[in-house]
Amino acid sequence: MAVKVGVSGYGTIGKRLAEGVVAQKDMELVGVADVAPTLPVKSLKARGMPYKLYCADKNRLPDLEKAGIPVSGMLEDLLSQVDIILDSTPAGVGAKMKKFYVEYGVPAIFQGGEKGEVADVFFHGYANYEKGLGKKYLLLTSCNTTGLIRAVDCLDRAFGVEKVAITIIRRCADPGDLHRGYVDLAKVDPVPSHQATDLMEIMPHVKATGLLVHVPITHGHIINVVATPKRKITKEEALAEFHRHPRIHVVKISEGFASNTALFQFSRFTHRPCADMYEIAVYEETIGFSGDDITFAIYIPQEAVTIPETIDGIRASLQMQKDRLEAVSATNRHLGLEPKKPLY
Amino acid sequence: MAVKVGVSGYGTIGKRLAEGVVAQKDMELVGVADVAPTLPVKSLKARGMPYKLYCADKNRLPDLEKAGIPVSGMLEDLLSQVDIILDSTPAGVGAKMKKFYVEYGVPAIFQGGEKGEVADVFFHGYANYEKGLGKKYLLLTSCNTTGLIRAVDCLDRAFGVEKVAITIIRRCADPGDLHRGYVDLAKVDPVPSHQATDLMEIMPHVKATGLLVHVPITHGHIINVVATPKRKITKEEALAEFHRHPRIHVVKISEGFASNTALFQFSRFTHRPCADMYEIAVYEETIGFSGDDITFAIYIPQEAVTIPETIDGIRASLQMQKDRLEAVSATNRHLGLEPKKPLY
Amino acid sequence: MAVKVGVSGYGTIGKRLAEGVVAQKDMELVGVADVAPTLPVKSLKARGMPYKLYCADKNRLPDLEKAGIPVSGMLEDLLSQVDIILDSTPAGVGAKMKKFYVEYGVPAIFQGGEKGEVADVFFHGYANYEKGLGKKYLLLTSCNTTGLIRAVDCLDRAFGVEKVAITIIRRCADPGDLHRGYVDLAKVDPVPSHQATDLMEIMPHVKATGLLVHVPITHGHIINVVATPKRKITKEEALAEFHRHPRIHVVKISEGFASNTALFQFSRFTHRPCADMYEIAVYEETIGFSGDDITFAIYIPQEAVTIPETIDGIRASLQMQKDRLEAVSATNRHLGLEPKKPLY
Amino acid sequence: MAVKVGVSGYGTIGKRLAEGVVAQKDMELVGVADVAPTLPVKSLKARGMPYKLYCADKNRLPDLEKAGIPVSGMLEDLLSQVDIILDSTPAGVGAKMKKFYVEYGVPAIFQGGEKGEVADVFFHGYANYEKGLGKKYLLLTSCNTTGLIRAVDCLDRAFGVEKVAITIIRRCADPGDLHRGYVDLAKVDPVPSHQATDLMEIMPHVKATGLLVHVPITHGHIINVVATPKRKITKEEALAEFHRHPRIHVVKISEGFASNTALFQFSRFTHRPCADMYEIAVYEETIGFSGDDITFAIYIPQEAVTIPETIDGIRASLQMQKDRLEAVSATNRHLGLEPKKPLY
Repeated sequence: MAVKVGVSGYGTIGKRLAEGVVAQKDMELVGVADVAPTLPVKSLKARGMPYKLYCADKNRLPDLEKAGIPVSGMLEDLLSQVDIILDSTPAGVGAKMKKFYVEYGVPAIFQGGEKGEVADVFFHGYANYEKGLGKKYLLLTSCNTTGLIRAVDCLDRAFGVEKVAITIIRRCADPGDLHRGYVDLAKVDPVPSHQATDLMEIMPHVKATGLLVHVPITHGHIINVVATPKRKITKEEALAEFHRHPRIHVVKISEGFASNTALFQFSRFTHRPCADMYEIAVYEETIGFSGDDITFAIYIPQEAVTIPETIDGIRASLQMQKDRLEAVSATNRHLGLEPKKPLY
Repeated sequence: MAVKVGVSGYGTIGKRLAEGVVAQKDMELVGVADVAPTLPVKSLKARGMPYKLYCADKNRLPDLEKAGIPVSGMLEDLLSQVDIILDSTPAGVGAKMKKFYVEYGVPAIFQGGEKGEVADVFFHGYANYEKGLGKKYLLLTSCNTTGLIRAVDCLDRAFGVEKVAITIIRRCADPGDLHRGYVDLAKVDPVPSHQATDLMEIMPHVKATGLLVHVPITHGHIINVVATPKRKITKEEALAEFHRHPRIHVVKISEGFASNTALFQFSRFTHRPCADMYEIAVYEETIGFSGDDITFAIYIPQEAVTIPETIDGIRASLQMQKDRLEAVSATNRHLGLEPKKPLY
Repeated sequence: MAVKVGVSGYGTIGKRLAEGVVAQKDMELVGVADVAPTLPVKSLKARGMPYKLYCADKNRLPDLEKAGIPVSGMLEDLLSQVDIILDSTPAGVGAKMKKFYVEYGVPAIFQGGEKGEVADVFFHGYANYEKGLGKKYLLLTSCNTTGLIRAVDCLDRAFGVEKVAITIIRRCADPGDLHRGYVDLAKVDPVPSHQATDLMEIMPHVKATGLLVHVPITHGHIINVVATPKRKITKEEALAEFHRHPRIHVVKISEGFASNTALFQFSRFTHRPCADMYEIAVYEETIGFSGDDITFAIYIPQEAVTIPETIDGIRASLQMQKDRLEAVSATNRHLGLEPKKPLY
Repeated sequence: MAVKVGVSGYGTIGKRLAEGVVAQKDMELVGVADVAPTLPVKSLKARGMPYKLYCADKNRLPDLEKAGIPVSGMLEDLLSQVDIILDSTPAGVGAKMKKFYVEYGVPAIFQGGEKGEVADVFFHGYANYEKGLGKKYLLLTSCNTTGLIRAVDCLDRAFGVEKVAITIIRRCADPGDLHRGYVDLAKVDPVPSHQATDLMEIMPHVKATGLLVHVPITHGHIINVVATPKRKITKEEALAEFHRHPRIHVVKISEGFASNTALFQFSRFTHRPCADMYEIAVYEETIGFSGDDITFAIYIPQEAVTIPETIDGIRASLQMQKDRLEAVSATNRHLGLEPKKPLY
């Protein structure tokens, strides 16, 4: 029988979580919750309400009704029906919402904007699935960290990785953001970036440091990784591992994939719903060597990259699969990532 | 029996033309032609070749083959099968391609990047459909002009329009463009912009002037129109006409549609293929009055806006419908624009 | 004897106000006040403290001291020495500061970010100088409005202007702003923009409406003006007036001035202090006609454009000159704007 | 007696070269040459011709004359007066100009846009001054490489550096560029970037690789460096060396220097001519460690950063100083970089 899932917060991430859950044959999306007739919420109505919307704040119910959005009940109604809730409320709000989840005895998975204390375990489907087994409150790694760990874990399991030094070129706003953005400006953050320290928490046997620079782009982050493997590896060996990974694509600059936006555009051209991409990409011609260190650049589509690992989290928390590879494979199959098809 | 259509040039516009033709029940897309394994061409392969690709230059056939793109023949093979060809090769190339179309006796519709002399008539489905009837070579108005004329023609048919003064805030590059773009710069062009003079050619009874300013955005143009109607009109009257038009949506800034990108994002959120939009939008709160002149701002999604009017062009050239409204309605029905549904 | 002037708030505008006052031979800059070691404040120290800094909040004095910024006293010390204070604190803060100015009996001129009620009169040096005579609290028009009125007043005094419809292409952030900015986005505001209503307050005999669109640029605004003159005028007549105005330059797109940034760069190339420009520019090739209406586009350097009119405000408030033209000419002479030299 | 210097090509770099030479007490700027009334050339006229302009192409002399630019003669006249010419014509043009320099027997220094074969030696004032001694044709490293080598050479001379892995976040256009630029796009280049290979040519004992990503900013590049020193060093040791270097500033993110543009703005605020900066900056809080590797991010002001090293090149080519430190110190003193003052 399908496990029943709810999504709390129907924004940039929540929308993708809902779609990702809908695709899982062994899960049922009971509904999503939000408080206002935002564009994502309005889009639900425009699509004919493919799933139910619940209101997360009764004071704001009139706003939804005035906008003509069909509301199926309150968050409490949703919580009383689900086996697990995926929290994708704005950063910091999840911690406040937790009391409702606790009250209804519903396990919850929080997104990377929340602080560590909200959860029992800091989780990444591929890197530490076992840590999440049976845990009631999981905190997903952030979008950058999720993508980064995918690539580092991929090499680590094959060859061993001692340490990484990363440079994150971060999109400073999502498309359409009115509340943030930079013009003609690259903002530099102090080191180490949280992505590096988060990686060390998920993969404690790897040392990591890194710089994060925010730049005026909206379609995905780019990370340059300098990784020290436990033994010298070749470009071909690394490529073979990346090619094998269901959540990683290898693309070639020489074949037109020379930017962040090329990958976004290709998602549009291939009619992916919402022009989204679950997979990260490695730019093949960026693989190089600094002594025995291997360097490579990856593309991280910030809007949808955490969806697979969040769904892995459902599997772990509810112990749907005990085995890591069985779990991620189930997620992958339902998302169309396995068996792996070439991107192009 | 369906008329047979080919598309020559499978780039930003060609891709959308092909999809638009596929949607028409009284048309058949025989195939598309291109010369290189660009991202749009690669996306065809990734989608399992929903329609056939022809090679437009035998010297470049090896490039397509090397990239593993299935090729169904040469442009000549396509031309010998079609009743009409839609040219969407890069600006200026269409004029060179015309000799092939002439050789095969195939009527052709060119996009707005070409010069007027390439065609028998300068065409806009809503504004001068009758001019295109039976004409062998049609030149479509450019994306900005197409959208602008939709709005002006809409008011003109209802109330009469004497003159317009426009300010075009033009997206300076398409998403992913590597060959053009401005950073922290708004480029000012001399007046009048070609959109104003083009409007006068299509609607000779209206006087027009306008300024075009290129700005660093990629998701659609914004035009502010100052229109002098033949009689004083009210905001409600204008709104009623815009609401009635199948290719125009009225959106509210106060409801979240406060930018170009809001409309692009909404297209993503509603899972429109390729996140495209055929319709222009009028921002309701931008309707104002300067004396008796009415002013309003419109959003023009540059990538797909010309598709409906190009399909109208097929109908005119091949005399599929003699009546303007029958023609545009047929196009609209197949594209899902009629009967009109609210955007949200 | 020179009138004694203070500047309260040493940020983007305050810095330029101070420099502008220093240039006036009949004024003396007693000092500037701020609360934190911001980049402009640090730059004062780096320049060897060309004028004195006062601290506007004793709780924040330690921050300034820790940063090694020489502090000459508190705001109160400054207020007790000056004949007038120029308030350029952040938008909305001026209203709170007013009580200090009142307490010390010091007239004040506020910048356009404040609300109208803070002042006795809404002021523009060229357009309504007489209204400011002897008034204790003046509110300057905002940067866009100041530049716009310069151009409209210039035509109005020569030919009469009945109404204007404007389209403002607004820089959405100043260079270096970390707290605001848009990426790949043009934000549309409801009409009428405040610049239009402000113009009507300053020039009550002119009707105005307008649209404001925020775009991702930092170096100046561009406004397209559609003006209805009282009698038909020619391009040459308009140009002659613009050429004559000490605070307006006419530039040609064909000579390299095709953008906002061209004017910023030219200010750098000519070694203007801070790469600033007090003058607005009219792009000559944007002058056109819509029926009898004249249209033209202007460039407004947002950082320094209000400085001359603010200094005019000092002259009005303190009745240094009773005559409008005598006053603006005095300001102009000291700023090097009169006698007028060609920009290039 | 002062050596006589000419500048060929008065654009972004040429303008700064001319100003830099003017500042050298032991050099005399005879004049600059260009072919068109560009904005930099027009700015010379606007400044009252602080130095002479020569025309580099007699066919284009009428353009300069028509623009009212005073021309003192042809390039040949300039070449016949100078001891050395600094070539700052557009990339690739320098190679064509060389025949004129050869014809007049004039040594020349080319900028980094030219290919290596144009010169006898690839030059960097601090890193390989001795190689340039008495050489007739020098090729300067590019702006990114010049700044990068400054920092790496600084550490290398103090501690020894074995290898570096760099990530360059490159401004994709200069302010005002109409011919290039990206919108909402970060372009990724194949590794190794030329900056890494160039570094190895200048510093053959250091291994280098690196990734270059072009981003939509105009005010300076940012490079993240991962350097492997010959012995473990501390942050304090590294900082001490950076602080000591006349062409490097250490800035703190926590003190407001959190971006590229903060440094550009500070140059404006401190009234540097043209808002230029000769120095690179190290962001103090970006200094970190990956194992024994030290990582740090630098800011490179692309417009003026190569000026000091080019002037060093004059000293080397003409053997004005035999000793590296004497030479760079002379350049530094005249540019106001020595004795070193804090940036703020």
